[in-house]
Amino acid sequence: MSESDLPKPLLSNARDAVRALRPSQIREVANAGFGIADVLPFWFGESDRVTPQFIRDAASNALATGATFYTHNLGIAPLREALAGYVSSLHGPTTVDNIAVTSAGVNALMLAAQLVVGAGDRVVAVTPLWPNLVEIPKILGAHVETVALGYGAQGWTLDLDRLLAALTPQTKLLMLNSPNNPTGWVMSRDQQRTVLEHCRRHGIWIVADEVYERLYYADPAARTAPSFLDLAARDEHVICVNSFSKAWLMTGWRLGWIVAPAALMDDLAKLVEYNTSCAPAFVQQAGIAAVQQGEGFAQELAGELRGARDHLVQALGALPGVDVKAPPGAMYVFFSLPGAARSLELCKALVREVGLGLAPGSAFGPEGEGFVRWCYACDPHRLDAGVERLQRFLSQHGG
Amino acid sequence: MSESDLPKPLLSNARDAVRALRPSQIREVANAGFGIADVLPFWFGESDRVTPQFIRDAASNALATGATFYTHNLGIAPLREALAGYVSSLHGPTTVDNIAVTSAGVNALMLAAQLVVGAGDRVVAVTPLWPNLVEIPKILGAHVETVALGYGAQGWTLDLDRLLAALTPQTKLLMLNSPNNPTGWVMSRDQQRTVLEHCRRHGIWIVADEVYERLYYADPAARTAPSFLDLAARDEHVICVNSFSKAWLMTGWRLGWIVAPAALMDDLAKLVEYNTSCAPAFVQQAGIAAVQQGEGFAQELAGELRGARDHLVQALGALPGVDVKAPPGAMYVFFSLPGAARSLELCKALVREVGLGLAPGSAFGPEGEGFVRWCYACDPHRLDAGVERLQRFLSQHGG
Repeated sequence: MSESDLPKPLLSNARDAVRALRPSQIREVANAGFGIADVLPFWFGESDRVTPQFIRDAASNALATGATFYTHNLGIAPLREALAGYVSSLHGPTTVDNIAVTSAGVNALMLAAQLVVGAGDRVVAVTPLWPNLVEIPKILGAHVETVALGYGAQGWTLDLDRLLAALTPQTKLLMLNSPNNPTGWVMSRDQQRTVLEHCRRHGIWIVADEVYERLYYADPAARTAPSFLDLAARDEHVICVNSFSKAWLMTGWRLGWIVAPAALMDDLAKLVEYNTSCAPAFVQQAGIAAVQQGEGFAQELAGELRGARDHLVQALGALPGVDVKAPPGAMYVFFSLPGAARSLELCKALVREVGLGLAPGSAFGPEGEGFVRWCYACDPHRLDAGVERLQRFLSQHGG
Repeated sequence: MSESDLPKPLLSNARDAVRALRPSQIREVANAGFGIADVLPFWFGESDRVTPQFIRDAASNALATGATFYTHNLGIAPLREALAGYVSSLHGPTTVDNIAVTSAGVNALMLAAQLVVGAGDRVVAVTPLWPNLVEIPKILGAHVETVALGYGAQGWTLDLDRLLAALTPQTKLLMLNSPNNPTGWVMSRDQQRTVLEHCRRHGIWIVADEVYERLYYADPAARTAPSFLDLAARDEHVICVNSFSKAWLMTGWRLGWIVAPAALMDDLAKLVEYNTSCAPAFVQQAGIAAVQQGEGFAQELAGELRGARDHLVQALGALPGVDVKAPPGAMYVFFSLPGAARSLELCKALVREVGLGLAPGSAFGPEGEGFVRWCYACDPHRLDAGVERLQRFLSQHGG
């Protein structure tokens, strides 16, 4: 057909708020390595191991038996029950009515943000931080203010007074990620108690991204890092976000959950309907297997990662000019080295010159500049090979 | 630990815009049938058949070979390539750079809305309409105006002049769903051309929800309903949303895609990152199987659904007081009958008294009041059993 009589099309652009969102600097580094066959990638927040067989089997069995239909917005009942039991065992009494299943941890964060913030609202976040927590509220038109962690002899620490000063009565929401990506910083229970009390006083919501809670090394007797769920009643202004990605190596499954007041669940179900409607039915069945049969695996994994952390910290610490401290949680070391003052350029050079894939600190906000992130969720031999490449790079650049 | 020294928690509520979102009236009807064992459900937009075996096998094979990792935000390359080929075969040249894989059709709509609308923007939608298109912009703070289809001797029709009048230069976005859920209305190519021309002139975005395009009965020679992709250049203000749910019976998989200008893809990738990051890796592998091996299945399914439509329309038309017309597309009949002036109450009575599960017209906006929706994606014997129940109900109520 001839369309020559139609007006000329306009060029298309996304709205300004979306164009202003940060693109991934990690992807920019990965692109710099495009075409280089021999890259050791430590840049993504992901183990190099496949999801355990029993979890994959559960999904395949569910597919074989026909679990290919829509589910309830908040998730299938047996998964919600399994999660309520799991959360109760870690953090005290939690009912099915406090649980919503989501299409990934990041989807849970988007839903939590949609629940409480709209255009013009003031949000506070503690940084350096994986970009998603800072960018999600901006998609909704909110204004995000950041409070930076400090770095010193104790590693990454929070100046609690600075955070409390930022949490003004005009603040709608505090977004926290502890154990923290990228720094490995873990908020102490005393800090959590003070922040919770302050937020109660001023009616400020807390969205706590606790997806790394099972990767906690500071207290060998603890199954999890300190959680707001240990302190908060289930009916107050606290929304905790979690994921199957880290504890059970299920990054590619996109399955998460929310613990929130029961009074919010009807509204949350509407938001789930309008975002993804539900997580895939057979993926939820796999989630049941992970929760019910995966406790031993999660504990072993945390032990392995603790070993990998110690191994990497020791190896990096032996290199000239590298300042690295063992972080108490998560699966990253976030360390400084010569050249890291321009971390994006440094990481591009690392991948191009020696095939070492690290994430630039500036990917996690301007507060992360001067550092790089190394994900140690892999075999120690692979870590050694990476350290050897870094050593070579540093010696080539006069280190 | 004692928390008695902390201030009393506040009760928690979602923000007003979220509380004002419509809850599902279909769910309200389903709840009215809770505890009734013998219900024939025709209320959801879903076939009663499991996803084809070859698609389920593709997912299981992908799981077995370890496809459990994050993928590119816009989807794995082979799926984007398969979709580019598929869309090209239906609607003319479309490149991989025009394709984004999403976590469901509804997720694609949320992403498209996030791309172009923010707080205070004016959106126009044609109704009756499944609620998601109307509610999604409200989550983002936009204002939605509706233009109602008319119902008469020709079935459901659009008054094009009314729609054009509503599409003022102050309008940011037109959201259209054709073939339409719930009415089965299909926008004609001439209407699409006029609307596209008008939107070009005034710089108005079009988001076209075309998930039912393969369920089109008005032209037996056509593989799809008329699409904006047949008329629009790939670099203009048109975003087409599609899904694997209807053509390949993959509702529970939550897999969809977007066809959009290549210039938008970097911004769209950011939004995918901040909403779900990607669709599950093995679900995407199943999507490749659906597109590459599922053309015969999709065509057979459309034929079966056409037969089911004809069967149901004939059976309903024989009942006293029922006004039903064969719709040109989708998988619903949206018809009037005695008592439907209060469709929610009618549907609750139908499920309670005779175990017949229909969706009330008011679930699709006030413009749908007076009608009920019946999904005919099932075996004709099941349709007959449902019609028998409706007949019994009508005779019991003096019909």
